[in-house]
Amino acid sequence: MAIIITIMVLEIKTPHEATWAALLASLPILLTYLLSFVNVGIFWNNYHYMLHAADKVDGAVLWANLFLLFWMSLVPFVIRWLDETGFQPLPTAAYGAVLAMAAIGYLLLEWALVACNGPQSKLATAVGHDRKGLISLALYIAAIALAFVHPWIAIAIYVAVSLAWFLPDRRIESARR
Amino acid sequence: MAIIITIMVLEIKTPHEATWAALLASLPILLTYLLSFVNVGIFWNNYHYMLHAADKVDGAVLWANLFLLFWMSLVPFVIRWLDETGFQPLPTAAYGAVLAMAAIGYLLLEWALVACNGPQSKLATAVGHDRKGLISLALYIAAIALAFVHPWIAIAIYVAVSLAWFLPDRRIESARR
Amino acid sequence: MAIIITIMVLEIKTPHEATWAALLASLPILLTYLLSFVNVGIFWNNYHYMLHAADKVDGAVLWANLFLLFWMSLVPFVIRWLDETGFQPLPTAAYGAVLAMAAIGYLLLEWALVACNGPQSKLATAVGHDRKGLISLALYIAAIALAFVHPWIAIAIYVAVSLAWFLPDRRIESARR
Amino acid sequence: MAIIITIMVLEIKTPHEATWAALLASLPILLTYLLSFVNVGIFWNNYHYMLHAADKVDGAVLWANLFLLFWMSLVPFVIRWLDETGFQPLPTAAYGAVLAMAAIGYLLLEWALVACNGPQSKLATAVGHDRKGLISLALYIAAIALAFVHPWIAIAIYVAVSLAWFLPDRRIESARR
Repeated sequence: MAIIITIMVLEIKTPHEATWAALLASLPILLTYLLSFVNVGIFWNNYHYMLHAADKVDGAVLWANLFLLFWMSLVPFVIRWLDETGFQPLPTAAYGAVLAMAAIGYLLLEWALVACNGPQSKLATAVGHDRKGLISLALYIAAIALAFVHPWIAIAIYVAVSLAWFLPDRRIESARR
Repeated sequence: MAIIITIMVLEIKTPHEATWAALLASLPILLTYLLSFVNVGIFWNNYHYMLHAADKVDGAVLWANLFLLFWMSLVPFVIRWLDETGFQPLPTAAYGAVLAMAAIGYLLLEWALVACNGPQSKLATAVGHDRKGLISLALYIAAIALAFVHPWIAIAIYVAVSLAWFLPDRRIESARR
Repeated sequence: MAIIITIMVLEIKTPHEATWAALLASLPILLTYLLSFVNVGIFWNNYHYMLHAADKVDGAVLWANLFLLFWMSLVPFVIRWLDETGFQPLPTAAYGAVLAMAAIGYLLLEWALVACNGPQSKLATAVGHDRKGLISLALYIAAIALAFVHPWIAIAIYVAVSLAWFLPDRRIESARR
Repeated sequence: MAIIITIMVLEIKTPHEATWAALLASLPILLTYLLSFVNVGIFWNNYHYMLHAADKVDGAVLWANLFLLFWMSLVPFVIRWLDETGFQPLPTAAYGAVLAMAAIGYLLLEWALVACNGPQSKLATAVGHDRKGLISLALYIAAIALAFVHPWIAIAIYVAVSLAWFLPDRRIESARR
């Protein structure tokens, strides 16, 4: 994930003047970075925890893992596109599509890990049904369509999903204690 | 390996317009990235597993390891060249040459690890004869020559080898369980 | 943290001529890099040690951790701005603001870890009251205001705080032994 | 160290044409990359091993460690300068100076670790007198002066030192077994 954060910071263009106005002009880019940082951070925390709780891995897990990482690695690419074209419908929808694919990758990884470790494993009880993951995926898919109505509706959904995940997750905490 | 993926994502140029046409124009670059991501991911998974299964390392292992990493680190360099010149014979052959050298590095690492851990070690039985590795190397060498007949023959071979490796590897799975 | 160092090195522009004069012209940038390297290195050492000493983590710890990493990741962004505009008041103050936010993130992380591991834990005794952390934060806040009087006053404070942290920390040493 | 390799690969400019002539023109840059890759790889292998063998660390060790990493992180900066100015005396000497400072950092780290772990520790016997490290340092210092006689004398010394380190190190091997 360090990869994605590195690339995103490199993409942020610094204001060319040392004025408040120039700093304000950089605000949308900085906020997009904040949103993406939170998204990547949440994924990373959950991902790390999940792999830690797993006793066994198999080919399907590696497959799902590569799938998830591939889509995560496209996040900076879409953000760059979003910034350069000024939050238009297509790049906004593309951002949602990449997040949706990453969410699918995450769910696939959960299922592969549970299938591999058995339904009675510590991991399976910690993961549960992952309603949160499924609802996030549904919201991302809705956002893809709504981006063509107005990009800011989609962006509001991305922010809302991030906030929902940012709140401490009781599942992880109780399993960690 | 994070290095290589970071660099590859940085190399992808975003479409300059927010249109479907612009996104389509980026498709070949995105597919090249997908292919390379899968290649690096496969190498990485096997590499990680192999070093994990090893009880001992010696100078020859470190040597082979540096050799492998050197050629892997040239992957983004060749991809950049491939993209900038539009899939011409020489860069396509160069891509095959780098993959072939990386495959040699991988085989050298296997041999060095087996030599160091002994033929009865867990590692030696897991690695076996690595027919898959040798066949991949042979195909990469063939692709280097065939790139001068037509670049797409070589690219088809690279894709085919990737797919063959992408299928879950029974050796690794059984050793991991 | 590797992220931040990578980005900072990429930002340093090399002198265009092979002369002593050209090398001297790069000196301010190299010194800024040295200062930031030391800052990031100190944060990193303490951070690593603290997470190592912790037995438990909870949602609040993850929250504080993400907060700290976010502000740390903005360090190269502010440095680039500082370099491009030639050490003017606003970017100098912004550098202090980012360091102050990172210091707050670090204190939050300490408090969250102590709250989670209990006041009798090894971690709590090692962290203590962290007067050094609080004083650093106060100095960074003072530097933000003083940057508008003269940027070099602020920069002198940043250097002084770095030196204070660079001296071997008795707390960490005794806990490590 | 991943940092340094990432940056170095990003610095390599790809040939703009798909011809053998264009590939040949990239050869000096590729060879400089090979040399630096080997240097960084050797440092990294020894560094990793040394930290692994250490039971205790103290403030002096962290200090020496930061010092070493700082100079290592300047390697890509000097290489870029070397490439852009076409192997002139001053940048060639600067490359030697950075390598010499990194070698000093490495020796300081060894001394700090031995001082901290005691002369009877596994680490102290493995490190020994490190005549190789001292000779390398002496050769780098000689190369700095000789770069002003002719850059290629200095470069020949850098290559020779790398080769000497590249040969499997009996100390490490025996300690690892």
